[in-house]
Amino acid sequence: MSAPSAPAPSAGQPPDVFRRLAPQMGALDRFMQDQIRSFEPEIRGMAVYCLESSGKRLRPTLVFISGWRGDGVVDDTLVRAAGVVEMVHLATLVHDDIMDRAALRRNRGTAAHEFGPDAAVLLGDALFSQALHVASQFPSTEVCRLVSESTRKVCSGEIMQTLHRRELGVTRDDYWRVIDLKTAELFRVSCYLGARLAGFAPEFVAAANDFGRRLGIAYQIYDDLVDFLGEEKSIGKTLGTDLASGKLTLPLMLLLERLSAPERTDLAEALQGRKPLPLSASVERMRALGIADGVAAAVDEELDRARAVLAPYATLEPVPLMLQLTDLLKSQLAALYSEAAKP
Amino acid sequence: MSAPSAPAPSAGQPPDVFRRLAPQMGALDRFMQDQIRSFEPEIRGMAVYCLESSGKRLRPTLVFISGWRGDGVVDDTLVRAAGVVEMVHLATLVHDDIMDRAALRRNRGTAAHEFGPDAAVLLGDALFSQALHVASQFPSTEVCRLVSESTRKVCSGEIMQTLHRRELGVTRDDYWRVIDLKTAELFRVSCYLGARLAGFAPEFVAAANDFGRRLGIAYQIYDDLVDFLGEEKSIGKTLGTDLASGKLTLPLMLLLERLSAPERTDLAEALQGRKPLPLSASVERMRALGIADGVAAAVDEELDRARAVLAPYATLEPVPLMLQLTDLLKSQLAALYSEAAKP
Repeated sequence: MSAPSAPAPSAGQPPDVFRRLAPQMGALDRFMQDQIRSFEPEIRGMAVYCLESSGKRLRPTLVFISGWRGDGVVDDTLVRAAGVVEMVHLATLVHDDIMDRAALRRNRGTAAHEFGPDAAVLLGDALFSQALHVASQFPSTEVCRLVSESTRKVCSGEIMQTLHRRELGVTRDDYWRVIDLKTAELFRVSCYLGARLAGFAPEFVAAANDFGRRLGIAYQIYDDLVDFLGEEKSIGKTLGTDLASGKLTLPLMLLLERLSAPERTDLAEALQGRKPLPLSASVERMRALGIADGVAAAVDEELDRARAVLAPYATLEPVPLMLQLTDLLKSQLAALYSEAAKP
Repeated sequence: MSAPSAPAPSAGQPPDVFRRLAPQMGALDRFMQDQIRSFEPEIRGMAVYCLESSGKRLRPTLVFISGWRGDGVVDDTLVRAAGVVEMVHLATLVHDDIMDRAALRRNRGTAAHEFGPDAAVLLGDALFSQALHVASQFPSTEVCRLVSESTRKVCSGEIMQTLHRRELGVTRDDYWRVIDLKTAELFRVSCYLGARLAGFAPEFVAAANDFGRRLGIAYQIYDDLVDFLGEEKSIGKTLGTDLASGKLTLPLMLLLERLSAPERTDLAEALQGRKPLPLSASVERMRALGIADGVAAAVDEELDRARAVLAPYATLEPVPLMLQLTDLLKSQLAALYSEAAKP
């Protein structure tokens, strides 16, 4: 481990958190590369395809910043924990893309598209298993215990969402419960593991845990808006899948509430599969009715709660970077919002 | 723990191993019941559906008999290990049935049939996660490490099989490799865990490990014959799925070898999806050409190897029961065989 001097964040620039994480992410790249060898030779090519995909690596970011001990400090334990949560996440993406019938992810074919849905079911399973195998290589059973439980919760959230499809009676509470499980759970455990494995005091570990959960909920609400208002080319994945599969996310709930009665009836019928789904018309109405406003308010509320739990620990090394992440999400939302406001 | 006197096996009767395992299986029932509570309330009903299914519980049987310390000795550690391997197995069945488009399993609808294939993908994932979560509750990371690695191998074997579908160039070696991973691996780890957790010496643990692997290969070859020659009603699952999905198992390989050239061309074209699949005609030809003979020879060879590794440990408590299991498989095969010989 080495600790070069920290580069000063430049005012007015985007948060530098990702630049400062370069050494950790480099170590994670090498770790993921090493993992390939653990897979049976016959399926290594497929494992490479999934593990090499250059995602945003949000969950590893959370592990690294929650366990931050200074620029350039690369802790192998954190790298392994980051590898575990990222591999669990990649496995869930492989299975999600089967269910969403999505062809595109990170600007290339999804595993289901490349290898067929049957092989993709099994490939996701193999990635899950390998993630838990890495988790079992820590000295104690704690990482395995936490990650396997989180994984079950993520799947439970996804099941609930699947069962709710095309159901118009889904409430705000149902929505929050689903995203708490399917997204916030893995964000939460990433922050917990980062802080805990880096040796921070239990009080801060608990705060990091709560921060991760709130950030995860905020992120999922933002991501649900991206599914409507994002540009497929810049996002790199198939968009509009929530509407296509009849998932009642917050943007769609807000739209249904604000539409005129005849419009609402039309969209409701489309959601229930009785009419073709009007993706571009829905997006138009979302822009016109300022749905992004309502979504932004919900994201802000969660981000405020995330920041509040860190308030007592402002002087700890991880906290400035954790706060940068909340700013980053806020500015991404603002960019989407201003994009949405364009005629 | 209590140890009542052992019931004497009655000569000429079927092996009494399952009767003697009743206390252990009762404890396993209670353990599986307890597991239900670990699932999120919203998906508990689905978890119950999968966990309550009354299968043969071969893998728990292997855990219990490899760690056998006498009749009525119920060791909680073995019960938990048996629960882990059974839950992993149930998860793989949930995913297998999606891929095989099977509607029936153990005389009732498969999870994919009951809840839809999308929910079934996630339900399988939740079962996997919970299995690993139980594995992480042992004092050391060993169970988690072994089971997660085995699970990855099981999935890898299934992927290879999926990739080989409708491929006529599959060799005997390919077939053995696939069944070694997809079936023998979990049999192997079940025997290893039973012997090891019950505190037997490393030499016997290694022998139990090899026994499990050989028995697993033998069992899968037998099961591949059942898929052609079994009676759907007595087996309780959709049969003929290997032919329907173009899986080249040993019975089908033998059939292709023994058919006349024009018959072979017909079946090959059907396997490649260019003609309807002639299930009942294939079964007729298998019976006529005595394919069960060739399959029985392969099963016997593996069972002989399984028995041979136990020879140095004939006086250890587990060994008589382990040998009974090989006899049981042999007599089941003979029953299938005599059924197959009927006109």
